[in-house]
Amino acid sequence: MEDSRHLDALRGLMRKYKIDLYIVFLADEHASEYVVDAYQRTRWLSGFTGTNATIVVTEDDAGLWTDGRYFIQAKRQIADSGVRLFPMGEDGVPTVEEYVKDNLPIKGRMACNGKVITLSDYDKYLDIADSKRARFTLDRDLIGMLWKDAPALPEKKVWILEDEYAGEPAAEKISRVLYEVSKEGAEGLMLTGLCDIAWLLNIRGDDIRHTPVPMAFLFLSEKKKVLFIAKKALEHKTRKYFRSLGIKVKPYESVYSFASKLRCPSVMLDPSVINARLALSFRDRTDLICADNPTALMKAVKNETEIKNTRLAHIRDGAAVTKFIYYVKNHVSDGNLTEYSLVQKLHELRAETLHYLDDSFDTIAAYGPNAAMMHYEPDMANDVRVEPKGFLLVDSGGHYLEGTTDITRTIVLGELTPEEIHAYTLTLRGALRLMSAHFPEKTLCQGLDVLARGPFWDEALDYRCGTGHGVGHISSVHEGPNGFRSRITEANPACELKAGMITTDEPGLYVEDGFGVRIENELLCVPDTESEYGRFLCFDNLTMAPIDLEAVDFSMLTEYEKKTLQEYHETVCLTLKPYLTDDEYNWLLNETRER
Amino acid sequence: MEDSRHLDALRGLMRKYKIDLYIVFLADEHASEYVVDAYQRTRWLSGFTGTNATIVVTEDDAGLWTDGRYFIQAKRQIADSGVRLFPMGEDGVPTVEEYVKDNLPIKGRMACNGKVITLSDYDKYLDIADSKRARFTLDRDLIGMLWKDAPALPEKKVWILEDEYAGEPAAEKISRVLYEVSKEGAEGLMLTGLCDIAWLLNIRGDDIRHTPVPMAFLFLSEKKKVLFIAKKALEHKTRKYFRSLGIKVKPYESVYSFASKLRCPSVMLDPSVINARLALSFRDRTDLICADNPTALMKAVKNETEIKNTRLAHIRDGAAVTKFIYYVKNHVSDGNLTEYSLVQKLHELRAETLHYLDDSFDTIAAYGPNAAMMHYEPDMANDVRVEPKGFLLVDSGGHYLEGTTDITRTIVLGELTPEEIHAYTLTLRGALRLMSAHFPEKTLCQGLDVLARGPFWDEALDYRCGTGHGVGHISSVHEGPNGFRSRITEANPACELKAGMITTDEPGLYVEDGFGVRIENELLCVPDTESEYGRFLCFDNLTMAPIDLEAVDFSMLTEYEKKTLQEYHETVCLTLKPYLTDDEYNWLLNETRER
Repeated sequence: MEDSRHLDALRGLMRKYKIDLYIVFLADEHASEYVVDAYQRTRWLSGFTGTNATIVVTEDDAGLWTDGRYFIQAKRQIADSGVRLFPMGEDGVPTVEEYVKDNLPIKGRMACNGKVITLSDYDKYLDIADSKRARFTLDRDLIGMLWKDAPALPEKKVWILEDEYAGEPAAEKISRVLYEVSKEGAEGLMLTGLCDIAWLLNIRGDDIRHTPVPMAFLFLSEKKKVLFIAKKALEHKTRKYFRSLGIKVKPYESVYSFASKLRCPSVMLDPSVINARLALSFRDRTDLICADNPTALMKAVKNETEIKNTRLAHIRDGAAVTKFIYYVKNHVSDGNLTEYSLVQKLHELRAETLHYLDDSFDTIAAYGPNAAMMHYEPDMANDVRVEPKGFLLVDSGGHYLEGTTDITRTIVLGELTPEEIHAYTLTLRGALRLMSAHFPEKTLCQGLDVLARGPFWDEALDYRCGTGHGVGHISSVHEGPNGFRSRITEANPACELKAGMITTDEPGLYVEDGFGVRIENELLCVPDTESEYGRFLCFDNLTMAPIDLEAVDFSMLTEYEKKTLQEYHETVCLTLKPYLTDDEYNWLLNETRER
Repeated sequence: MEDSRHLDALRGLMRKYKIDLYIVFLADEHASEYVVDAYQRTRWLSGFTGTNATIVVTEDDAGLWTDGRYFIQAKRQIADSGVRLFPMGEDGVPTVEEYVKDNLPIKGRMACNGKVITLSDYDKYLDIADSKRARFTLDRDLIGMLWKDAPALPEKKVWILEDEYAGEPAAEKISRVLYEVSKEGAEGLMLTGLCDIAWLLNIRGDDIRHTPVPMAFLFLSEKKKVLFIAKKALEHKTRKYFRSLGIKVKPYESVYSFASKLRCPSVMLDPSVINARLALSFRDRTDLICADNPTALMKAVKNETEIKNTRLAHIRDGAAVTKFIYYVKNHVSDGNLTEYSLVQKLHELRAETLHYLDDSFDTIAAYGPNAAMMHYEPDMANDVRVEPKGFLLVDSGGHYLEGTTDITRTIVLGELTPEEIHAYTLTLRGALRLMSAHFPEKTLCQGLDVLARGPFWDEALDYRCGTGHGVGHISSVHEGPNGFRSRITEANPACELKAGMITTDEPGLYVEDGFGVRIENELLCVPDTESEYGRFLCFDNLTMAPIDLEAVDFSMLTEYEKKTLQEYHETVCLTLKPYLTDDEYNWLLNETRER
């Protein structure tokens, strides 16, 4: 919770600088999804801790925009901050742009920190400002001026992902990328996405919580390759490695002056990723060629090594999760399980696993009504006891040297209501229908979303998020461009599925003050058969852990859905057997038996 | 069949005018789907009669591009014409653009008739020509010069669709359209789509076979409204009607000189509809504002009168089709049924129907292997006897004063192979799964396509066309922007479903030299329930005719699919009862009984 002092202070500065409308983005200079503490300006202002937030402040109003995952949480956290919630996508709720258009005075002045707004968003707001004959200035980081004790940027050590784990040497990736750059008619590429840089150079780091990538910018051309990164992050070995790739190292912050002094006729950049301040730092002599980062699609299509290793990571991770479920089922009646203790238990089981690096995000272990908050996190200070009744939703994942996992299981702890059984069965049907899909090449992710959502829609139900997201390789657990979504937006454009893409399949139902259900498997897109109608694709389940059958109303399942479920469980049992004790394995066999 | 004399003559003219590459579009000056005989230049050149054709001619090659509906038919028809088939979308087949790019010589010259290429296609080819430092000229209508006995343009009488059938007076529609034009910042609108003009002015005509609209152009602004149309098409009553709307009438061909002399600061036009010659006729003083025609979405969302009437049209049309199926079933053993005689029989049954105006397209009555050609048309000269065995596929429709219909039924004539039963059941499952969908507002048509295609994809099968298309109201039977398709293309962009849209649901399976199956119902998008997740939509079946159950393998259907089928047939029986004889009704009850 946050009181309104920070908001009052911001308004004071706005008056001083004659700013009518100020936008605070939850963003870093790299358009990262998870941003380090130094950039948690929306949290500082409002108290809201979700990962999607934009705050607009005027003289007499202040609004926080976030998406459906966070409505319940945000309402609680910002209650006393003076900021009110604008639940995105709800009926009658204006978008940030609409709100700005309605509230920016004619010939007024709006501002934001230019390093944390993307070039495409900058263009959009500039249009709005133009339409009101207003000014839009990028120079003012008002929160930075007010937040005296803001944390410093992290400068953790960079490490090299060896070729046996990366599957393709960085030099080859750089060649492929520069070829794509030349095809777009550009000489240079300004790469600012942290996961793009980490993937391309086969490096990892530890700057962002649970996203093992370093803070850096990268400029690439045939003649000049420069990495902008904190000196302290580099050891002798990594310096030598960069030298072997022909890459010069310069200080992180010097990227802006580098851009302003660069002599390169044309630079390609992705306006949806690059920050406006950096893009505008290039001088007129440099043509800016706006295009998708060529790295985005390349890293989404995993290579053979990544696939082989990711399968292994999922088996080991699945064994840890299965042991966890076994533990929960056997101890829930003891009376001393709590959400937080279970987070720790699961963390311990993962940490014992071979080549474990880190959890891939903060584990969600949500009991009862807490599970209705999609991104709930247990709080040690207000820990919740888990009773032998209802559902426990656990969404978690790990980074291993072999790859990254993301899995959700909703565990039956005891007696269930008919509503809970119904919701669980709908969710299971959605997950099964998507994982068992077959489809020709060039099919859009967006074209398959209805398979998961259909059972919900038939009952006027839905979930306020995508059905699934791409998963990075020892990188961000959320990665584009693939993702199962029902709508096509600027942020989620149409994307064709390709063999090698990994996408989660995670429908769910969230009943405020009631309960939450989610079942999440990761699906690897693989070649299916070929016919006169072309090459077909389908999905392999990467996730290997039992789906709780105690909450299933089998009369709701079609024969095909039952078959998909049964075959999945047979594979899970066979695959996990070597990793389980006899007791665990016998329990697993019994839990997953055909009903 | 066509020999290569026309192609030789064209190459002679190309040499004379020093043209290296000439493109012949099957198109009129309005980007109509069905084009009148005067514009059948691709047919004149190659003999191909399908409705989608582009021919590219060079010194030593000539190619015809068409889509999957026509591959089999095209191969036969162009066999001796010197033109070879490029089956669109097949592996390794270049697109027209790719072919042009590969075959246009550097600094060469390409040309086409500028009145039959859209502005957006012109821009695309101009880019290609630029990339080869070649010229692209629009002035040469070489086929027009060669085709001495080309038919004249039709000038059939225009008639007024009274308000009781149109549901909204033209004056109100014009106001709505001009409001949209002003919102785009334009003063004038150049409307060239024939169905758009007919819808907007509540007029109909008879210029295009089975598409009851007149040939016309329309310019609209608050100050100036001009209809360009053949004088002979107008009677005193229609002239008076146009005058009452403040519309001046000018000769059809004068639109080009009108544009070149127009003094209007800004004109909105749809580059995917307007022809390049007309667009380029506007002078520099006029800003061209490119945007979708506002009429497109307005006419796709039917008003209450149109909906009420269309339901009625479908009931009467369904009764005619049901009587037809009854007739076929009772006479197939007589031994004298032929495809052509059945086309006539169905036409007679429709023509007896109240307020019948015309068939909405040439009836397809295809027996056995002929049904593998999606757009097969029976040929009186080569009529085919229909035997008591296999399938008869009949795809047909009518225009009535109340609306337009489009229906396909595949009729079981006798013994079937297991393959035929399997294909029919897949098709039925696809149709049922789509018609029973529920979905929230803003769902994309493209997001539901998988429901119909899924059962096929699961077996590496598919159909080489969309699952369904929008249907006009006493207008073109194919109408955008709605349509069920798996991919998003320039021609079929993403489209949100809205209550009031009518779209066909017509999956099928086409086995070359074997058989063809298609089941087609028209679906009206209607409001479903409303919940905390927003407003939901679903479909009402407009089509009212029995689906043949003799070819169904019921073991393949889910319980939900069986329920959907049974409920549909209960509605059909109840609705058609007043229109059928006792014998017909009792037969219908028996045919549609629950199995």
